[in-house]
Formats: sequence, structure tokens, C-alpha cells
Amino acid sequence: MDTKELEHFRRVIQNELDRAVDFWLKYSHDDQYGGFFTCLGRDGTVFDDLKYVWLQGRQVWMYCRLYRKLTRFHRPELLEAAKKGGEFLLQNAKVSPSSKKCAFVLTRNGQAVKVQRTIFSECFYTMAMDELWRVTGDPQYQKEAVEMMDQIIYWVREDASGLGRPEMPGAPPVNTMAVPMMLLCLVEQLQEGNSEMAAKYAELEEWCVAQTLQHLQRDGKVVLETVSVDGKELPGCQGRHQNPGHAIEAGWFLLQQAIRKQNPELKKTAIEKFMLLPFKSGWDEKNGGLFYFLDADGHCPTQLEWNMKLWWPHSEALIAFLMAYHETKDPKLLDHFRTTFDYTFSHFTDAEHGEWYGYLNQQGEVALTFKGGPFKGCFHVPRCLYMCEKLLDSLLEEFQGC
Amino acid sequence: MDTKELEHFRRVIQNELDRAVDFWLKYSHDDQYGGFFTCLGRDGTVFDDLKYVWLQGRQVWMYCRLYRKLTRFHRPELLEAAKKGGEFLLQNAKVSPSSKKCAFVLTRNGQAVKVQRTIFSECFYTMAMDELWRVTGDPQYQKEAVEMMDQIIYWVREDASGLGRPEMPGAPPVNTMAVPMMLLCLVEQLQEGNSEMAAKYAELEEWCVAQTLQHLQRDGKVVLETVSVDGKELPGCQGRHQNPGHAIEAGWFLLQQAIRKQNPELKKTAIEKFMLLPFKSGWDEKNGGLFYFLDADGHCPTQLEWNMKLWWPHSEALIAFLMAYHETKDPKLLDHFRTTFDYTFSHFTDAEHGEWYGYLNQQGEVALTFKGGPFKGCFHVPRCLYMCEKLLDSLLEEFQGC
Repeated sequence: MDTKELEHFRRVIQNELDRAVDFWLKYSHDDQYGGFFTCLGRDGTVFDDLKYVWLQGRQVWMYCRLYRKLTRFHRPELLEAAKKGGEFLLQNAKVSPSSKKCAFVLTRNGQAVKVQRTIFSECFYTMAMDELWRVTGDPQYQKEAVEMMDQIIYWVREDASGLGRPEMPGAPPVNTMAVPMMLLCLVEQLQEGNSEMAAKYAELEEWCVAQTLQHLQRDGKVVLETVSVDGKELPGCQGRHQNPGHAIEAGWFLLQQAIRKQNPELKKTAIEKFMLLPFKSGWDEKNGGLFYFLDADGHCPTQLEWNMKLWWPHSEALIAFLMAYHETKDPKLLDHFRTTFDYTFSHFTDAEHGEWYGYLNQQGEVALTFKGGPFKGCFHVPRCLYMCEKLLDSLLEEFQGC
Repeated sequence: MDTKELEHFRRVIQNELDRAVDFWLKYSHDDQYGGFFTCLGRDGTVFDDLKYVWLQGRQVWMYCRLYRKLTRFHRPELLEAAKKGGEFLLQNAKVSPSSKKCAFVLTRNGQAVKVQRTIFSECFYTMAMDELWRVTGDPQYQKEAVEMMDQIIYWVREDASGLGRPEMPGAPPVNTMAVPMMLLCLVEQLQEGNSEMAAKYAELEEWCVAQTLQHLQRDGKVVLETVSVDGKELPGCQGRHQNPGHAIEAGWFLLQQAIRKQNPELKKTAIEKFMLLPFKSGWDEKNGGLFYFLDADGHCPTQLEWNMKLWWPHSEALIAFLMAYHETKDPKLLDHFRTTFDYTFSHFTDAEHGEWYGYLNQQGEVALTFKGGPFKGCFHVPRCLYMCEKLLDSLLEEFQGC
């Protein structure tokens, strides 16, 4: 094995991670109220001071994770900002004292602006609290994480009425892939090095894997975002909806699980069905990049942004193919990593200001120039770069040890 | 005045109207359950059988209006389909027997799938019922229209809690331009040739005009979509949000009002501030076409579709500039009509199958190939063409009478 290319990837990725973290450290901290500005223009200019709860939770998690896992980020400024972000969430995220329901977006000083009738604000809150506990050792954070996790599980598996979405006769409950994926991610988070939590969530973990696998449809030919609760394809656009980057993200969640459980069949499914299949159907052969949405029968999706190239499907594909290559050493998987790497580093990066553009048009031109917005914060880019750096370290160690 | 160009416009528009109506007549009728399929591919293929209530109401209205106003559409097939659509709405649109709240989308056989916490399903229901009354003479339709109208007014001006949207401390009530525009459109509808209704809604009509004018901000330099209830600019992206096509649509609503009320000051404001200003800032000088969204300070909008060219802003601009030219004979307004006409008829039309594409990318290429979807039905295209045909008839009569 020629390690030169892997060394090149590692050098570029490490440098890019430093530049991304610098961007958030420099422009996103709200020293007055705590928490983070996330609506940041190309050069870091704050163009809105709303605080999106998903992104607050994700940034707290990301800072703590970097602080804990990479020596060069074991810096007080990351820890302090994460703690201030955590306090902001503790004080403001929950809409009322009597409920665990969190807002989707808050004003700069923490007043609720909007509540989503889903579980995701609460999920990122849980990730933030658990990771904060791991870096501070303060048990209140772990308690918050576990209590919120148990509330989320209750909403998902027992009774969703607390989320506030009315049941409609024409809309029976469905299995949305994001839900079991998100819960699997939380189990992975809470049980790290903690056998008590691993035991507590063992059954849930298996349920999440089974629920995710239900999205593989049509005799293993397509991954569909939404299926019926008994794992059947749904009618219409909803049933045919595909999100290739999201399927690939599910792929590395499942692969991680397969590695931990030493399950070769799950490993094969994760790689072949949740990575290679959506990459093949989702990659734009003409212009490069992954389409955002597709219809499994080839109809035009109804979402206006279907043909755009978003940063996060590419971040997830980088993680997925490098993890799969790390696990199998199959050169085809390194090819896919390389293809994604080349597209990503020639289209999303910004040599001048750091962090990535988030939204390109089909042709690969920057369509939205900001670095942070309502759905883009300090998360997918640094998570991808940190995980790829770790995987490359491990690969290089392995190959250089040969 | 050389009328050749006007005659050319009229010929093209009349032909295009016939082709658009043919498309909906041929592909959209659900003979089994009544109502209309609106998810139609380029060639009319039904790609989803969900029934969006806005679009059901709009198509009933459109068929009745064409039947009533243009002799060549006074055809039983339009009337019958409209009546079946009206019955479908009467039987299925309301979510429960105890409330006037309507669903946003229904299954093919009329079960509620989703409810929006706004007034718009109810508004298009009202338009449909009133116009059905006008063509059938059946008083139950008018009763339905007026009762729903009074419920809408109650939600907007007395108590919005029945819409189901919780009040949030960080989100004080705002003045969204769509609301007074929509109500003004309904008043226009209900009071046509009906002095009792004109008297009933006279105060509301003035309120709508005043509320719409509040959106002219920064000393008359910009039209903003959302302002505070006391007519001030709001902070952040929400406050700076601009939708040039929507402002231009408001322009012709206001101009119509100014004509009816013989109000020269309102006429001037409608044309200069709600048509010329947003056309100037919203027109893409490089590629042609109206941007979908802009930020008043020039930041990049956060909506992924901001730079797309949608069909309806162009339909509205055609109506606006032709109405304004009809009223003033100012050649600058005919220039803007011509610019919009040239772009529209060279980009949105489909010589093969009729109706228009709805969604182009910034460069003017078709980005979504379908003719009907969750927000595009039998409405903006035929309304525009019918109104322009009428205006051109009137202009030609006037000029040829000279």
C-alpha cells in the first residue's frame, strides 16, 4: 500500500479542521448571553442573532468532543464556550417548566420563537449534555441527558401526543428513517465506556437497527426515507422519496454498530445497501456531487432544492467510505472516498475565510454564500474532518506498521 | 398607437390560455371521487393523488370564473367539474364537523392528511364557494362563502387561537403581507355586483389596504414581506425578507382598489412602490427573470430556492404591468410588460404539452419538470392569461376606437 495518498488526505483534512474550528471560535460566540450565533455570512458576519436549538446543541457537542478526543483542541476556550452554551440550553431550551419539550429556535436572549413537533431539538440537547458531562465530570449534565433521552424514547415508542402533532385520519403513523438513526446515534453517545447505559439501551439499540433496515425496499434495490410502521413502501411522493446522503449517513451508523457487535451480515448490508447503492443512484454523473433528493421511480421530486448539492451529504459520504475502507481495505471504497473528497475540496471549501459553503446549485456553483444558517452550524464539517482524521491516523498506523 | 404589438400579445395569450385549460381538463379530473389531481408531470401523468385544498379551491374558482367571463369557456364540462370539485370540498375540506378549520391536504378520497395553522385553505375555499354561487345561483354556496369569510375575519382580527398556533414569548404577532392581500382579494370577490356585501366589508377593505401599505418601509424604498403589527421593520432575516413577485401582486391588488375607489394617490403608490420598485430590485439583470426572494440589505437569503425563477411572480408581473399600462398608458409600463412577456414565453411555456413549467434555476433552465405539484395548480397561469386577455381586449377596443 502506497501511503502517500492517505498522508495527503490527512494533511488536507487536518488543516481544514483547524480552519473550520477557528471560524466558529472567532465569529460565533455570544459573550453576552452565552450560546452561539449561527447565522454567519461568508466572512463570519452575523446576519441574524436567532439561536437555533439544534445548532446550539450540536456546537456544544462538537466542542466537547474535539476537546476530549484530539489533544490539540484540549484548550480552555473550547471548554468554556461549550459550558456557556450548555448553560444557555439548560436555562432556555425548554418551552415550559412543566415539560421537556424544547424550542426549535430562540431569540438571542433565550425566548422561544418556534417549536417543532418532532424530537430533534431534544436529541441534540441530549448529545450536548452527555458530552458536556464527559468533559466536565459534572453529574447534572449526565442526569439531564438521560432524563431527556427517556422522554424522547417515550415519545417515539409509547405516546407521541406530547409532541403536539394532531393525528390525522389520512396520515397514519410512519417510520421516518431520521428517527431510528437519531436514536441509534444517541445510544452510541450515551453508552460509550458505560456498561450500565449499554445494558439500559441494549433493546432500544436493536430496535433502531431493525427500524433503519426497514427502509431498504424493493428487494434490496432502494433505500426509501419513509416507510409504513410495518416496513412497507408507502404510496405517492412520500413513499418514493430518497435522500442519498441521508442513506449514506445511515450506512456509517449501521457500520459502526456492525463493528461493535461483530456482525458481518450487518456490515455487508451497511456497505452494499446503505452506501454503494445510494451513492450509485445519487451521484450526478454529469456535474459531480450528490443530489439532495430523488424519486425512486424517476419522477421529478417536488422539493425545489432537489438537484442542489449540499455540504452535509458529502461530509457523511466522506466518513462512510473512509470507515468502510478502514474496515474492509476494499479499494473500490477508497475510490468512492477519493471521488467525494475531490468534489468536496474543490467545491465546498473557502480558501479565504474557512468553513464550507453549504449550498451549491446542480452545476456546483455556490448558490448560498453564508457559512452558517438555520440548518448549518458547527457540526457536519468538523465532525466529518475529525472522524476522517482519526480514521486516517489509524489506517496510516496500520499500513506503516506492515 | 401601433396596435400590432398588442394584437400579437393578445393572440399568443389567448392561444396559451386555451392550451392551459385543455391541459387541466384533460388530465386533472378525478371522475371517481370528484375534485382534481394536481400532481401532474410534464405530460399530465398523475404522479401523486393527494389533493391539496388550496389547489382544489383555486381550480373550482378558475373554472367558474372562465365559465362566467369568457364566452368560449361557457361549456358544461367546466361547470360540471367545478360543481364536483365544490362538492368534494363541502364534504371533505373541514377537519371536523364542529369547526370551520380546513385541511391543507387530503387523500384522494378526502381524508385529512395535514392541517396548516394559517387561513389560506379557508380563503381558497371561500373563493371557490362564492364563484360557484355566481355560476349556479345555488344559495348554499354563497352561504358557505360568507360564513367562512366571517370565520376568517374573526381569526385574523379577533382571536387567532382557533388556528392552533401556540403563542411564543419570542415571536410577537406580526403583519404578514399575504394576510391583508388575501382578505382584500376575498372582499373584491364577495362584493362584485353586490352592494350588501360591499357595505358589509367596507371597513375591512380599508383595513386591508392600510395593512398592505404598512409593508412599504425605509422611507418608501423597499417592500418588506413581514412587519410588526404597528408597521415597523422587524429585526433579522424575517424583517429584511423580500419577495418581489408577491410585492408586484400586491401592486395590482392595490391598483384595482385605487381604480374602484378613484383614489389617485393609492394608484401612484401601487404602481411606483409596489410594481416599479420591486421589479427594479427583483429582476435578474444578468439572466433575466424575477428572483424568488431577496434580503433588503443584500445578505444572501437563507431559503435554498431564493435565486430560482418561479412561474407565478412572472404571471403576477404580467397582470400588474398590463393593468397599470391600461390605466395610465405610460409606455414604461408597457416596456416592463414586454420584458416580462418575452422572458415568460421563452422560458416557462411548453410547446408540446401545454401549461407552464413552474420552477427554473437562476440561469432560466427548467429545474422541476412537472406542471402541477403541491403549490402549483390550475390558477396562476390561467388567471394571468384570462386577465391579460381581458385587458388587451379593452386596450385594443380603446385604441381602435380612436
